[in-house]
Amino acid sequence: MSDQPSRPTLALIASEAGVSPATVSKVLNGRTDVAPATRERVEALLRTHNYAGPGGGRRARRSGLIDLVLAGLDSPWAVEILRGVEAECAERGIGVVVSLVRDDDARPPSWQNLPALHHSDGVILVTSRMTRQQRRQLERAGVGLVLVDPVNLPDADIASVGATNWAGGLAATEHLLELGHRRIAMIGGPADMLCTQARVDGYRTALERAGIEVDRELIRYGDFRHRGGFARTRELLELPERPTAIFAGSDEQAMGAYEAARQAGLRIPEDLSVVGFDDLPMCEWMSPPLTTVRQPLEEMGRTAASKLLQLLDGRPLLSPRVELATELRVRHSTAPPPTA
Amino acid sequence: MSDQPSRPTLALIASEAGVSPATVSKVLNGRTDVAPATRERVEALLRTHNYAGPGGGRRARRSGLIDLVLAGLDSPWAVEILRGVEAECAERGIGVVVSLVRDDDARPPSWQNLPALHHSDGVILVTSRMTRQQRRQLERAGVGLVLVDPVNLPDADIASVGATNWAGGLAATEHLLELGHRRIAMIGGPADMLCTQARVDGYRTALERAGIEVDRELIRYGDFRHRGGFARTRELLELPERPTAIFAGSDEQAMGAYEAARQAGLRIPEDLSVVGFDDLPMCEWMSPPLTTVRQPLEEMGRTAASKLLQLLDGRPLLSPRVELATELRVRHSTAPPPTA
Repeated sequence: MSDQPSRPTLALIASEAGVSPATVSKVLNGRTDVAPATRERVEALLRTHNYAGPGGGRRARRSGLIDLVLAGLDSPWAVEILRGVEAECAERGIGVVVSLVRDDDARPPSWQNLPALHHSDGVILVTSRMTRQQRRQLERAGVGLVLVDPVNLPDADIASVGATNWAGGLAATEHLLELGHRRIAMIGGPADMLCTQARVDGYRTALERAGIEVDRELIRYGDFRHRGGFARTRELLELPERPTAIFAGSDEQAMGAYEAARQAGLRIPEDLSVVGFDDLPMCEWMSPPLTTVRQPLEEMGRTAASKLLQLLDGRPLLSPRVELATELRVRHSTAPPPTA
Repeated sequence: MSDQPSRPTLALIASEAGVSPATVSKVLNGRTDVAPATRERVEALLRTHNYAGPGGGRRARRSGLIDLVLAGLDSPWAVEILRGVEAECAERGIGVVVSLVRDDDARPPSWQNLPALHHSDGVILVTSRMTRQQRRQLERAGVGLVLVDPVNLPDADIASVGATNWAGGLAATEHLLELGHRRIAMIGGPADMLCTQARVDGYRTALERAGIEVDRELIRYGDFRHRGGFARTRELLELPERPTAIFAGSDEQAMGAYEAARQAGLRIPEDLSVVGFDDLPMCEWMSPPLTTVRQPLEEMGRTAASKLLQLLDGRPLLSPRVELATELRVRHSTAPPPTA
């Protein structure tokens, strides 16, 4: 997971303390399975060598905790990220303090104060907006930061983890084209989100490569939730020339499309093909099981945690932005279009 | 949420310190929004009065963290509990460290060491087994403990939160009886779990009250997961005289029943009625939306957190075991049986 091996300083300190680099790392991570005398010796050397993170203000003694800040827990999506973060941190003895920033909060989200409150060393911020001011506040406090699927384009030097959304949009649409569909609708998430834009662009490109003109009426924007998928599918099915396939842009939106199709008396996949995005566990439980674009969400969580711990160890990241590969999973919700 | 008002000692300390009881509580909870001088004064008085939890070994200085230990995060069920615990704790400035105990772990689960690792003050343990030895270890460390939906019957003095499973099983079955069903199957969770036993007993009692003899062949045990619901429904639908309704015992099992019905060419609810248990968010997204027994999962999480914080404040619980009410939610997966 590391972008490069530890800085020589860590090895140097290990050598001077007469311990392994792993032990120095344990001390840095605030783990309790280090003998007190060893810990003191290592901490003294860390201070001597002025070993600190890139910000310089990093606290020498680490708490062994990080904050995971989620925009909401009502989507199974967030849980998959949490699972990955927890798994990576548990292996290193780091505790994960989970907090929610609620969209409907009257107060402005003040997640940047959580590390001070919990005495934690860093933050993983999931699908949320971040202002320059919030960033500066974290830097002043010497707190590490990694973003997962940021809403807006982050500064180039901020560590962030996402998925190859453009390639996923392309793959989903090409799958439907190969089945023979020509009238393919797309329901994106919120229009201002980075990942929506990338998925819609992948969809457009697939159509254009197939020589199909993009019909703007077939592109709709939802909220990534069931409600949006249901409402947009209803609108699409009422068009004079309705689509034979819908790329729903998220699994929850695909579930909404299922319900709208059922209410319209359409069978999936015989009358309407549906493709989702995410590959949540529930995709296999749907009737019929959903063809979808897999995002390696758990792996994204693991990568975010690994990057944060690397930052906290004072080891710079060679590539702050990482996109993990998406992959099409064909199940039973897609078929050739009905022969009309 | 408190079972009784604070012990007089807390009011006494507040009075001596010249602050409100709320401020003393903040200090006890390790919150940071207390002036340092005030905190020191209060902490000195807490020490003077030997203010400690019922175990006597409670640490005077609190970390402002609790551990939430879940048996798994792959079910949306656990997320609802987490949501409630987080909401209750966030309001009080307490951080929630989330950890998983994996069933398939080669190592024995050692969750009882987490509070020491994270320097947290207490544990909420969700749907897991606990040994006497683990309990004693926590007590020695002065760590508070609350169970949510314990697998086995806990000692009477351990705080625990659950739902009225028996009443839920009764209500689900009576709803199907009122629709005219006579051949009603039940798919419980694992047979050795307390909540399964209570739900099956509610089912039996409803049938007996309606003068219907319980057919043991119609009672099956699953795993609370999609897989179990699918397999057991398949078996039930292959019986010579198949049931016209299935009480699936969990929403995930109900999703499995949907898929088994679809593969058998049966429509829900026209050919087969299905009732779930839990009322997860996805019930509204299913096609058709699922009739289910609502467990107030978020409220159960809130109650567990509230009880734990009460214990940590040294205030005894009048009733350690609480069951929150279940409630039938009728949606579109139940209808009168087909007239054969």
